[in-house]
Amino acid sequence: MTQYRNPHPTADIIIETTLQDGRSGIILIKRKFPPYGWALPGGFVDYGESMEAAAIREAKEETSLDIQLKYQLHTYSDPKRDPRKHTVTTVYVATATGTPEAKDDALEIGVYALDEIDFPLAFDHRQIIDDYLAHKTFFL
Amino acid sequence: MTQYRNPHPTADIIIETTLQDGRSGIILIKRKFPPYGWALPGGFVDYGESMEAAAIREAKEETSLDIQLKYQLHTYSDPKRDPRKHTVTTVYVATATGTPEAKDDALEIGVYALDEIDFPLAFDHRQIIDDYLAHKTFFL
Repeated sequence: MTQYRNPHPTADIIIETTLQDGRSGIILIKRKFPPYGWALPGGFVDYGESMEAAAIREAKEETSLDIQLKYQLHTYSDPKRDPRKHTVTTVYVATATGTPEAKDDALEIGVYALDEIDFPLAFDHRQIIDDYLAHKTFFL
Repeated sequence: MTQYRNPHPTADIIIETTLQDGRSGIILIKRKFPPYGWALPGGFVDYGESMEAAAIREAKEETSLDIQLKYQLHTYSDPKRDPRKHTVTTVYVATATGTPEAKDDALEIGVYALDEIDFPLAFDHRQIIDDYLAHKTFFL
């Protein structure tokens, strides 16, 4: 079969957590590699690996957490969403137990209340979090 | 950047239509190439092309219809879903006006009422249509 050039699939994960003061939050990572900045945990899907398996693996690699997937939020494919090359990300919402610890591509871990994520994020992760909040408001 | 081997993204489309007797239906194509059989219209996403643009282009190429996307249903990534190679498909639900005509990879077009699609479909398209029907029942 002819090999065409296709976008590269990735999986990103919104890991829901509860802060010590009881507020709902999610986990962000500070990226070790460009594009720098805070972002959702996630990464490239391997050939032969499902999106769900990639989401669980990437969450573990970057945050040390074992996650349980709750639902698939949406797939984002704007060719300009990733400055490195054309990636298509499928975003999952998950829960986790345990204490996150930065590893692999993550320099640092941040646990943020939903209403305090008012700073710039890498890629289109601002849009993704806005969509997540809208989805939570309308459906959950 | 190192080139990893990734699954290949595709877009498939559930094109909603109304049959002459007033029943709700969707459009299927009979595939010209393996895997043979009836399937949803769809195909590979080009590098630099969004999933939404690919869905509109593939629907046009295979059915001659200009479609309007309604919503994104889900993304399916089981490594065994496509016998050719590992593909990840994002499925859109759309409407269309005009008369479908088979072109490109489509040998034949079928307009089927939702309750008469009781025959085998290529890929995981049976699962996709079942998920679409469940989604319609619960959310629309």
